[in-house]
Formats: sequence, C-alpha cells, structure tokens
Amino acid sequence: MERFKRNERIAAMVKILSDNPNRLYSLNYFAQRLNAAKSTISEDIVIARNVFEELDLGRIETVPGAAGGVKYRSKISAAESLDFLKGIAKMLSDPGRIITGGFLYMADVISNPQVAYSAGRVLAGCFERNPVRYVVTVETKGIPIALMTARALGVPLVIARRDNRVTEGSAVNINFLSGSTGRIQTMSLSKRAMERGAEVLIIDDFMKAGGTARGMVDLMKEFDAKVAGIGVMITTTKPEEKLISNYIPLMFLEGVDEKSGKVRIKPNEKLFF
Amino acid sequence: MERFKRNERIAAMVKILSDNPNRLYSLNYFAQRLNAAKSTISEDIVIARNVFEELDLGRIETVPGAAGGVKYRSKISAAESLDFLKGIAKMLSDPGRIITGGFLYMADVISNPQVAYSAGRVLAGCFERNPVRYVVTVETKGIPIALMTARALGVPLVIARRDNRVTEGSAVNINFLSGSTGRIQTMSLSKRAMERGAEVLIIDDFMKAGGTARGMVDLMKEFDAKVAGIGVMITTTKPEEKLISNYIPLMFLEGVDEKSGKVRIKPNEKLFF
Repeated sequence: MERFKRNERIAAMVKILSDNPNRLYSLNYFAQRLNAAKSTISEDIVIARNVFEELDLGRIETVPGAAGGVKYRSKISAAESLDFLKGIAKMLSDPGRIITGGFLYMADVISNPQVAYSAGRVLAGCFERNPVRYVVTVETKGIPIALMTARALGVPLVIARRDNRVTEGSAVNINFLSGSTGRIQTMSLSKRAMERGAEVLIIDDFMKAGGTARGMVDLMKEFDAKVAGIGVMITTTKPEEKLISNYIPLMFLEGVDEKSGKVRIKPNEKLFF
Repeated sequence: MERFKRNERIAAMVKILSDNPNRLYSLNYFAQRLNAAKSTISEDIVIARNVFEELDLGRIETVPGAAGGVKYRSKISAAESLDFLKGIAKMLSDPGRIITGGFLYMADVISNPQVAYSAGRVLAGCFERNPVRYVVTVETKGIPIALMTARALGVPLVIARRDNRVTEGSAVNINFLSGSTGRIQTMSLSKRAMERGAEVLIIDDFMKAGGTARGMVDLMKEFDAKVAGIGVMITTTKPEEKLISNYIPLMFLEGVDEKSGKVRIKPNEKLFF
C-alpha cells in the first residue's frame, strides 16, 4: 500500500473524525488505514487538533491509555452559535410567515438539514457535560433537530409516537394534558425502544405551555430513565409558568402580532456568555 | 492574522467542506478565512481531492469560472455501501426483532443517526445525476433517512403530514389507498412547503404495496412537481406488483417467519455493480 504524505493523512483523518462525532478511534485504526507508524499518527493529530482549536472548528480529543485513542467533539463556538440563531430569528420574523390564529410557519426552517445540523450542534454543546445515553423526542417536527443533536453527541435517537403502532410491538402509553389546547393527548413508545435506567436528553422544536415536554418526562419515568436535560429550539415567553422547569431554550418567541405583521423572536443570549 | 501551514489549511478546508455537502465555496472564501493566496488554496485543494479519491472518502469538485469554486460531494463507495447494508441486514435478521403479526421491529435501527447518515449518503449517490430541488417524505419513520439524504444532496427537506395542522396554514390534502391495509388514508402538505414546478426526490423507509409512495407522487402533482426519483431503504419482495414503478430500494425483505424465527433480508446488490 502507498505511503501518504502528512497533509494527505491529516485530510483523511479530519474527514473520518468529523463524520463520526464522539466515536473513539484507536491510533492503530489510523495507523493501519493510512499505512503509517502510530507515533506519526500522533503527531498528525496534534496538528489537526491545534488548527481546529484556532479556527473554532470543534474539538479533537485524545484519550490516553490502552483503550484510548482520538475522537472528535462537534463543538460550535459561542460566536458561531449566536450568528446562527440571529439568522434564524431574522428568517422567522418575516411577516409572510404569520398564519391566521397567530401561529408562525416554521416547518421549512426547522426541517432544513443545515439548520437542523447547526441547531443540533448548539443543543449538544449545551448538554455535553451531562451523561446522555439516548436523545428522546416525540413526532414530528422536532425529529430533524433531535436527530442532529443525537448525531453530535454520538448517541441513538428514540422517537415517541402520538399513537400506538402494531409494527412496534408492545408499547408503553401515557396520557398527557396539552397545556396549549387543554386537551388530553397520548404518547406511545415501544418497550424495545430503550434500555431501562438510562440517562436521556429530551429535545423538541417548540414549547408553549410545556405539556408535551411534561408528557415526555412522564413517559421516561415508565422506563426508569433519568432525565439529564431538556432542550428546545424555541419557547414562547408566555405563559411564563411552564408545566416543566429546568429546560434550555435556544430562542424566545415573545409575540406574533397578526395586525401589524410583527414577530418578536430572539436568541437566548445568556447561553453564550 | 496568523499564517497557517499547508497541512493546517488542508485540515480546516476538509472540515468545512465535508460539513457542508454540495455547497459551493469560492476560493476567495478560503483565501480570506485561512489568510493565504488563492493559488496556494488551489494547490491545497488538489492535495485534498487526491487523497479523498484514493481513500474513497467522497469527492471534492472544482467548478471553474468567475462564479466557480470548490464543493464536496458526499460520495460513498460501492464497497462501503455494500458493507453498510450487509451490516444492517445482519442486525435486522435478529429473531428477537420479530413482532406478532410477522412485523419486524426496526425503529431503533432506522432512526439511529449513524445508520441514517450512511443510508442518506447511499440514497443520495443513487440519485446524484438527477436534478433535485427538494427531498420529500411523509411522517414519521422515514424522516431521519430523508433528512440525511437531503443533507448529502445539499437541498431542503419537505415533510408531509398524516393530518392537517392548524399551525401550518392552508394545505393541500389528498387521500390515498394504503395497499397493505386496504384503508383510505390522508396526506397533507402546507402550500408554503415548496415552490411549484420543482424537481423532487421522494424518500421513505419502508415499502410494501407502495400505497404511501403512490400517495406522495399524487401529492406532488398538486404542486406541479416533477418526481426525479423514488428511493426506499427497504422494500418487501411481496407483493411483487407495487402501486408504483421506478423506485430504488436499498434492501429487499423477502420474508419474516414467526414460527422458525427466520428473517430473510438482503442488500440490493445490483446497485453496486
């Protein structure tokens, strides 16, 4: 097999690491795949790590020891996060997005792959210190952001359903009160979906009264899960009192005025200072 | 601003390009961000392109001309694709996945971020020659794979709903016949979800009779869209006659035998030869 030059090895390593966030690769893996000595690979990693740090491209971490190696953490800088959220706020402030009833059309934005990717990285950064075994969401609109959060953290995604499906085997169902509509709704999750007693991160796209998030917390109790965190892309500032506490919103929706066509939405700047 | 060495510039460029598949970056962008001459950046790109080709890591393409630049195509090799699909087939063949009624539990697999990422790259590769403006799917289980396909192609994702939501504004609804259950179902998509007359790629996780895919084709007609392709992760071999033709499956599910605990599932090897 051919020998690669240093910059070729680095290009390959950066690609493989950033395609697989939070996955630990042994130095042997790279030594074999790139046909180089482990000491050489170590030096390559130091170079890549430094430039990632310098240009705020994420973090390359080395884990010492026999079971050690190197992994990539999909870290997004405070400045880039804030820029991203300001861009989203601007997009969502378009009066053309206001729907009769004071709703805001945002399905196109939150299911956009690049938006979901960035949102997932920001959310993953908010909870990276918490041990997380699964990211959990409930269908439908939160799925893209939750998937990208799970990808950034390197853990599986679990999707609760609004109803019980025959194709999912026996399931746990719970009822919950939607704080916005005042109606009882159902949430269902296959018993096979996750191991009992795991740490979970709950992710959703939007929170108003917090009923859905509350429902997910209750559903997790049925799996003896420990809720390590709750993150939402956007929360309304009213009602101030939510059905849950201890959640992290990336943005605040302060109001949608149908008459004037004014949408007030802003990033949660506290996250970044 | 500091000067970077060649291997540092390459590390940064590879990271930025592979984080943003199919997005065109001008040489100026990299020249400014990495504080180097355009001619130097050009040379860096040639090195990265060659090692990507050699190690089957995807394709770095240069677009000549004033509006030109460089972009990354998330190409996955035939060998890696086949390995990936064989791994999925093995996972899904576990008798413990069989659910009463002859169903197969696979929600955990198809919503796993790494699985969805690889499946999305394989599907994107199948349709990369077709012009695609949007990837379209219908909730719920196909969303992770469709999102990753859209990401690999660098286009937005559009998610049709099973019902009509007040938060999505005025919508187009169609009814379709589920070929598996024989029941009439509804599919709904906000009028704001896509521009008329666009080329779309329809992606779903599973096909049996093809009713859902047929429904999506019909829904797309209401938006004057041109269906550039239909891709599914898994199709059953029976019924042989589907409600649509011209679809590409990544895998064939030949049978689930509840008595013997045998699951017959295999990759669509024709795709890779």
